[in-house]
Amino acid sequence: MTGTVYGVGLGPGEPDLVSARALKLLASARHVAFFRKKGRAGRARTLARDLLPADAVEFAMEYPLTTEIPLEDPRYNRTLAEFYDGCAAHLAAIAEDGEDVVVLCEGDPFFYGSFMHLHERLNARVAVEVVPGIPGMAAAWTASGMPIAWGDDVLTVLMGTLEEDVLVRHMEAADALVVMKVGRNLPKVRVALERTGRAQDAWMIECAAMADQKVTRLADVPAGHVPPYFTIVLVHGQGRRP
Amino acid sequence: MTGTVYGVGLGPGEPDLVSARALKLLASARHVAFFRKKGRAGRARTLARDLLPADAVEFAMEYPLTTEIPLEDPRYNRTLAEFYDGCAAHLAAIAEDGEDVVVLCEGDPFFYGSFMHLHERLNARVAVEVVPGIPGMAAAWTASGMPIAWGDDVLTVLMGTLEEDVLVRHMEAADALVVMKVGRNLPKVRVALERTGRAQDAWMIECAAMADQKVTRLADVPAGHVPPYFTIVLVHGQGRRP
Repeated sequence: MTGTVYGVGLGPGEPDLVSARALKLLASARHVAFFRKKGRAGRARTLARDLLPADAVEFAMEYPLTTEIPLEDPRYNRTLAEFYDGCAAHLAAIAEDGEDVVVLCEGDPFFYGSFMHLHERLNARVAVEVVPGIPGMAAAWTASGMPIAWGDDVLTVLMGTLEEDVLVRHMEAADALVVMKVGRNLPKVRVALERTGRAQDAWMIECAAMADQKVTRLADVPAGHVPPYFTIVLVHGQGRRP
Repeated sequence: MTGTVYGVGLGPGEPDLVSARALKLLASARHVAFFRKKGRAGRARTLARDLLPADAVEFAMEYPLTTEIPLEDPRYNRTLAEFYDGCAAHLAAIAEDGEDVVVLCEGDPFFYGSFMHLHERLNARVAVEVVPGIPGMAAAWTASGMPIAWGDDVLTVLMGTLEEDVLVRHMEAADALVVMKVGRNLPKVRVALERTGRAQDAWMIECAAMADQKVTRLADVPAGHVPPYFTIVLVHGQGRRP
């Protein structure tokens, strides 16, 4: 009898936005794994602090790098690949020992999540089950107080890490926009929105569904401001509404 | 003291994918409202059947039309506008009487949901609060067993109701695709995917996160098949993965 690796979506940040299915898995977890930056508690682990048994065995998966090596450097991919290989081997060993393990995932596990890299390595080897979660962008548009897309609106999700010209091309084509991973990319994202005439309609949401959530019209964000990495910029669709 | 209208996202269809916050609001609801087609129980109401108090006062909001009048006909918008006006007036009256009312919403209320039309009418008049939910598309990609978007992938969400050439333009530009409201639009969606060389990579998810969920490679769907209206077609992104 081998165990199952559960990739459990915890939603955007507030513990009461976790689903009943996820809560049940967390409450009975014997093994728990989560990603975190070196020297941090980990966002997913912090979210789950009151949802786990006190005696769960924890496995912190610490990213070996964040911005120390540029994305384009082949060492970046190699270092991360080795990291994910090691994490996956550890989780597979737990499952092959007959125990289940719950991987805590912010937002939705299959939507730009680190869990996907484990899933790809584990899926052929042990049983893997995914529990969807509320993505961070849904918390962002809820915080904005306005629906993100109406009727036949085309919604495009962009990473702030993309090049300015790529951002511009997609910003021109879509009705509604979600830009994720804004952080240090804010000046570039802002210029792309200005070039497409959409900056005046954009909103910035920092720390959606967290204690320090902040919703600001992009036009009111000072030029030098560097928001957190997971900051989201939205342009709401204006489609059909009877 | 006036009450609050809560737009509560219930997620994609399985009761245990409802969030703790939503469950709490449902369990203590005195007034509950939900949309449904004439002659149907209503999908949101069915999802919530074991989550509501037995003595809650229910208000079924029955769509006055679905496909009887074409979208382009001015009577379509007029009929729907009057319908939403009437629903909003009823909910506002409950809140102005000092009672809270919970509006049951499939998926996420601010993501292509009918609740948005009530929100627009109620927001200036009474207190409105929105609880985000897991969108149906997240259940669809979870059911497909594959992550929807990686790294810097551009994800575009399209309605199957769009014209073929519009679908083609966006399908060419994006890395990952979600096509919603497929139903009778399946032949057009399929042609658009074929024109952009993406039909072989497409998956169709009928009834995501419901008892009769079905995941099929689009290439294996027979030509004459008419899936349910809320069917989703996906093309997964293939972005960076260390």
